[in-house]
Amino acid sequence: MSSGKSDRSSETRELLLVTAERLFAEHGVEAVSNRQVSEAAGQSNNFAVGYHFGTKEDLVLAIVRRHYESIERRRIEMLAEIKGSPDLRDWMSCLVRPNVEHLASLGSPSWYARFIAQIMTHPSLRKLVSNEAASSRSMQETIEGVFRLLPRVPEDVRLERGDMSRLLIVHMCAERERALHAGTATPRSTWESTAAGLVDALVGLWLAPVTARR
Amino acid sequence: MSSGKSDRSSETRELLLVTAERLFAEHGVEAVSNRQVSEAAGQSNNFAVGYHFGTKEDLVLAIVRRHYESIERRRIEMLAEIKGSPDLRDWMSCLVRPNVEHLASLGSPSWYARFIAQIMTHPSLRKLVSNEAASSRSMQETIEGVFRLLPRVPEDVRLERGDMSRLLIVHMCAERERALHAGTATPRSTWESTAAGLVDALVGLWLAPVTARR
Repeated sequence: MSSGKSDRSSETRELLLVTAERLFAEHGVEAVSNRQVSEAAGQSNNFAVGYHFGTKEDLVLAIVRRHYESIERRRIEMLAEIKGSPDLRDWMSCLVRPNVEHLASLGSPSWYARFIAQIMTHPSLRKLVSNEAASSRSMQETIEGVFRLLPRVPEDVRLERGDMSRLLIVHMCAERERALHAGTATPRSTWESTAAGLVDALVGLWLAPVTARR
Repeated sequence: MSSGKSDRSSETRELLLVTAERLFAEHGVEAVSNRQVSEAAGQSNNFAVGYHFGTKEDLVLAIVRRHYESIERRRIEMLAEIKGSPDLRDWMSCLVRPNVEHLASLGSPSWYARFIAQIMTHPSLRKLVSNEAASSRSMQETIEGVFRLLPRVPEDVRLERGDMSRLLIVHMCAERERALHAGTATPRSTWESTAAGLVDALVGLWLAPVTARR
């Protein structure tokens, strides 16, 4: 059922998603209204976002899902390759590389890394992304693989280092994307070596001895 | 020269700083105008921010400086105590604890951690904070101490791990502050053990072997 009308509708949806991602990445989610997204996407109807997506939350979730499918696919492939590896580095690769390789595949300029960083620092919207990640089978499998290799790390420290891993990946990628866009210096020259640096650092972070609580 | 008028002026400045910090932390810097800050601080003059501080950049810098003095003082004390220590953990403490202890001293609710996280993800305002940190003598001394203990880590990896350390401290503290405010779960029960967890993780991160570049 591919009529001219549904083609136009799907083009409009795509245009709204791309425009919203860029505006949210640049200005923050709170600073941008659905009306501004519609206008910046050149829609004569100021309610285009409402018509095609619903609320701002629905719009944010649609942007997230637009990327998650490809990230999820890459992680499932990687997990199949390392199946049951005893090397923590392999599991850290499964955490880091699907995101970083997806960003590399977007070319320049991309906005997705900064968009995710904005969402993850938003008081309520961050739950949308956390829920998507929590329902990802490949993410669950990766986390279980990490825990299996580190049975002596206490539960609260596992949670903490899980948070730290997420924050490092999200914000290192967002800073790199921002620097590439602004033409300022980055510590690494490629996304590939950015991923290598993150994997190195996260292996060290997860293996770090836990000092006694004071 | 402490007249009633200058007392009132300094009270108004303080009220504007506290109000702006809270609004920026909650909604992002771009979503809040100087006029909204003035109104939320109960100022009948909508240009109170302009009158007392100047631009939004000036206001942000005044909020940063309001906290940095106490953080800088703590770090100078700590550096005097560990003078020339060969233990990386001591230097990581100098990186982490002055910030975390300052946050603990603010009581609850505090807004400073979320405010800094908002500034550090802002395309241009982040330079204000980076410049303040770069001009801090205690911060320079801490970084030099870390590098002295890790002479074989390549220059670009040092820069990268410096970025990672900053991101972990800023965003772990912001997430904890947000969770305390919302009454949701935190991996650690106190700021003190949050600092211990960060120091453990950063020691591991800095000591992690650097793999060959591919």
